[in-house]
Amino acid sequence: MSDLLSTFKKPEERLEDLGLDGLTILQNPQAFRFNIDSVLLAWYASGAVHRRTKTADLGTGTGVLPLLLYGRTHTGHIDAVEIQKEMADMAARSVAMNRLEDKIHVFCSDLREEPGRHLTRGAYDVVITNPPYMPKGQGAVNPDRPLAIARHEITCTLDDVAAAAQALLKDRGKLFMVHRADRLVDLCAVLRAHTLEIKRIRPVQPFPDKPANQVLLAAAKRGKPGAVIEAPLSVYSEPGVYSDAINRIYGTDGPVPKVFR
Amino acid sequence: MSDLLSTFKKPEERLEDLGLDGLTILQNPQAFRFNIDSVLLAWYASGAVHRRTKTADLGTGTGVLPLLLYGRTHTGHIDAVEIQKEMADMAARSVAMNRLEDKIHVFCSDLREEPGRHLTRGAYDVVITNPPYMPKGQGAVNPDRPLAIARHEITCTLDDVAAAAQALLKDRGKLFMVHRADRLVDLCAVLRAHTLEIKRIRPVQPFPDKPANQVLLAAAKRGKPGAVIEAPLSVYSEPGVYSDAINRIYGTDGPVPKVFR
Repeated sequence: MSDLLSTFKKPEERLEDLGLDGLTILQNPQAFRFNIDSVLLAWYASGAVHRRTKTADLGTGTGVLPLLLYGRTHTGHIDAVEIQKEMADMAARSVAMNRLEDKIHVFCSDLREEPGRHLTRGAYDVVITNPPYMPKGQGAVNPDRPLAIARHEITCTLDDVAAAAQALLKDRGKLFMVHRADRLVDLCAVLRAHTLEIKRIRPVQPFPDKPANQVLLAAAKRGKPGAVIEAPLSVYSEPGVYSDAINRIYGTDGPVPKVFR
Repeated sequence: MSDLLSTFKKPEERLEDLGLDGLTILQNPQAFRFNIDSVLLAWYASGAVHRRTKTADLGTGTGVLPLLLYGRTHTGHIDAVEIQKEMADMAARSVAMNRLEDKIHVFCSDLREEPGRHLTRGAYDVVITNPPYMPKGQGAVNPDRPLAIARHEITCTLDDVAAAAQALLKDRGKLFMVHRADRLVDLCAVLRAHTLEIKRIRPVQPFPDKPANQVLLAAAKRGKPGAVIEAPLSVYSEPGVYSDAINRIYGTDGPVPKVFR
């Protein structure tokens, strides 16, 4: 294993167990690392993904979303794009390390130039994305460029992400996204402008009775207006203690979110 | 009292105690009657209303919102418009019965023709509204016209309400609205199109862990983008039993919602 590992892992990288289906992932402690948002988004999308679903991940970073989604669904086809060469390379090595090259394809590409380059227009049943949360010019920008690109809308805006998702999805195809709660109004306006109609909104609160800090969204291309505001997911029941709902999601025995039309 | 009452009350009407500050209201059992949405909206707006606030209520119906808001805040100036002559007349009689003619003014007027008719443009600190919930052509329309007008967008659309609110509010003035949860995306898009930026969203769920059926919204005219998604309010703790939060709102000893900028 250590020989095999050395073919994939660079010295500065760390190997992490995804705690799901025996999957592992490479992480660079100096760069962007995945967090609970990806775990929740993979869970949120999993109800709409089965073996024959074609899924695209926009801005895959470490490749965590495809790996988690595969782990939950054993789906056969995920295409992931990542603009940063080093991240795309690390994500591809994580995929190879898990021997999933035939299921998950990582492309180093600018999502503003997709679709039609690597990803086919109108070919996807599902698009998933955990895009940069902060608008350009708002909040402190991390001096480390990979971190800055992952967090701030430097290489793509929400509008760019929506445009790419719209172009890649089939009619009635589904978009799953996680974003900051305080951008919900932006999300509603921008997605609708791209004919992506929000169908489900799941606020994610740190604690019960606290305002949400994140939102999980499901939208349908050319869907009918009318969104369900689901009861929020609380991450912690008390400081440092995950809620039962989160433990069940991590443990993968939680209820799979219902599919919508 | 029965003599005084007969000067205000028509035989087909019923007198109801608002359970607040000794206030009463006339209701026509055949027509639209107020419900919990108005109680919640009056509570939601009350943190932004004090004695000297100028408030407008768009589509007041029975006049319940001005009465409840007065009961909570003893505010000195509420102008209410109602398009239906019989409803406006009944609302005005309820106001007179409570001897509040110097605080609450009811105008029979089409909000699409306000402002500038009875209500002055740019003069209001706060606008409150419980508009018709159903888009025209969706859902069964009540054969009774007053009920149909209260529930369906027959005499005004969401866009009309937003346009009137925008025109009536001062800069940074606040709009408080209650609406169906499944129209949240419409609300985000339409309010923003009228420079009314949603600042707070409070989902209202029938029970804990159930999706929301209503939303309370607070928006600011020319406010900065960025909304807080508050923890939901659950109406019932179990079937037929109001939650503690609702009991405290009805009892008026609940926390007054924070003012926002």
